[in-house]
Amino acid sequence: MTRPRTPRGSVVLLSGGMDSATCLALAVQDGRPVHALTVDYGQRHARELRSARALARHYRVGRHIVLTLPLGPLLVSTLTRPGSRLPRGRDRGRSIPPTYVPARNTILLSLALGYAESTHLGSIYLGANAIDYSGYPDCRAEFLRAFEHVAQLGTRRGVETGRGIEVRAPLLRLSKEAIVQLGERLRVPWELTWSCYAGGKLPCGRCDSCRLRALGFDAAGVPDPLVRRPARSGAWA
Amino acid sequence: MTRPRTPRGSVVLLSGGMDSATCLALAVQDGRPVHALTVDYGQRHARELRSARALARHYRVGRHIVLTLPLGPLLVSTLTRPGSRLPRGRDRGRSIPPTYVPARNTILLSLALGYAESTHLGSIYLGANAIDYSGYPDCRAEFLRAFEHVAQLGTRRGVETGRGIEVRAPLLRLSKEAIVQLGERLRVPWELTWSCYAGGKLPCGRCDSCRLRALGFDAAGVPDPLVRRPARSGAWA
Repeated sequence: MTRPRTPRGSVVLLSGGMDSATCLALAVQDGRPVHALTVDYGQRHARELRSARALARHYRVGRHIVLTLPLGPLLVSTLTRPGSRLPRGRDRGRSIPPTYVPARNTILLSLALGYAESTHLGSIYLGANAIDYSGYPDCRAEFLRAFEHVAQLGTRRGVETGRGIEVRAPLLRLSKEAIVQLGERLRVPWELTWSCYAGGKLPCGRCDSCRLRALGFDAAGVPDPLVRRPARSGAWA
Repeated sequence: MTRPRTPRGSVVLLSGGMDSATCLALAVQDGRPVHALTVDYGQRHARELRSARALARHYRVGRHIVLTLPLGPLLVSTLTRPGSRLPRGRDRGRSIPPTYVPARNTILLSLALGYAESTHLGSIYLGANAIDYSGYPDCRAEFLRAFEHVAQLGTRRGVETGRGIEVRAPLLRLSKEAIVQLGERLRVPWELTWSCYAGGKLPCGRCDSCRLRALGFDAAGVPDPLVRRPARSGAWA
């Protein structure tokens, strides 16, 4: 395993949501091998894990790692505390949303970094978005560049080759509408994705994540297969 | 939990070895509260976990988190692969030792970062050492400074106050001899620590970690309570 190899291919941080699904589609388009890493950190919407598995199968990734990392005792956040109220639209607009999970993207990126270096993959795809999640400190370009610097200084590859592992966040400056449009072009199977924070059998339609998703699909003029259409078909995805 | 507090106190990354034990003693000396975080990432020397628990009890830390994080499927390293040969003295001197675990300190620091921000602790203590572990890319001062930059940009505290979480690596430029001398002054209970990679009931005395420990104790002229003395007492610690 010490034979030097040209770093190529990527690992995609795959939550199962529409953003990471679009990232996965982009990574596959950019070139194989593509692996996926899903971290189950005890978030409420464990329903996303099933979506992540379905997406990994759909895109036939080289390897899909599902890592169980119980962050509940470690971190304090709405998303990891079972009893707490989910954020709704009226909560938005604060500087940092209550759904912020301390150091989440740093933790996810560090795990992906270890995996990428172990498996000789050259880049990490992360579905971070600075438009809709502008309040999250770890969804900003300067944070991602700082992490790339850590990746260069803190890995064998970085030290030996002067090149670390690239962090790609292709959705960073896209609106949800633009993400839906991009996903449409890439033929992302939206019916396999999951966005709702509530984690029921069907999207709740009211949480922050459902509303953002709906805004994106509506603005792009694309029907969301997960949402029941008023009359006509009446079918669930 | 959103009330702003002055960040004080620290979380110590506590493996159970002599370096992290000395860090813990320093953190306690520097001021409370002191919490400890031990990450069981499937390393061979799980015996260290018992030492970590004993040290946390000895120093009466505010909280000791033991996080199980099975990195085996994720990372490739001698320390996490059960069948592989342990490094001995003759392996040392390479640029990066075979015991290097990809992105290990980045992963450990990111977990400690999330914990520190969640619990309003101002600093992270890490027993990294650039003398004996000079080959490890993630035991260098520039790596630690780069991580601090990530901590400032990627956390709520960093964004809202302009000050992130400080990474303290007080042993970075100390030899093993100097660490033993420092620990003696701080009255570190060496008998509770564990360094051996082999993870048997008693230190193997042959692995890299045992040899470094022995060199340190010998140079400092301090008897290691874990090592059987030739004659006289004949007792094990």
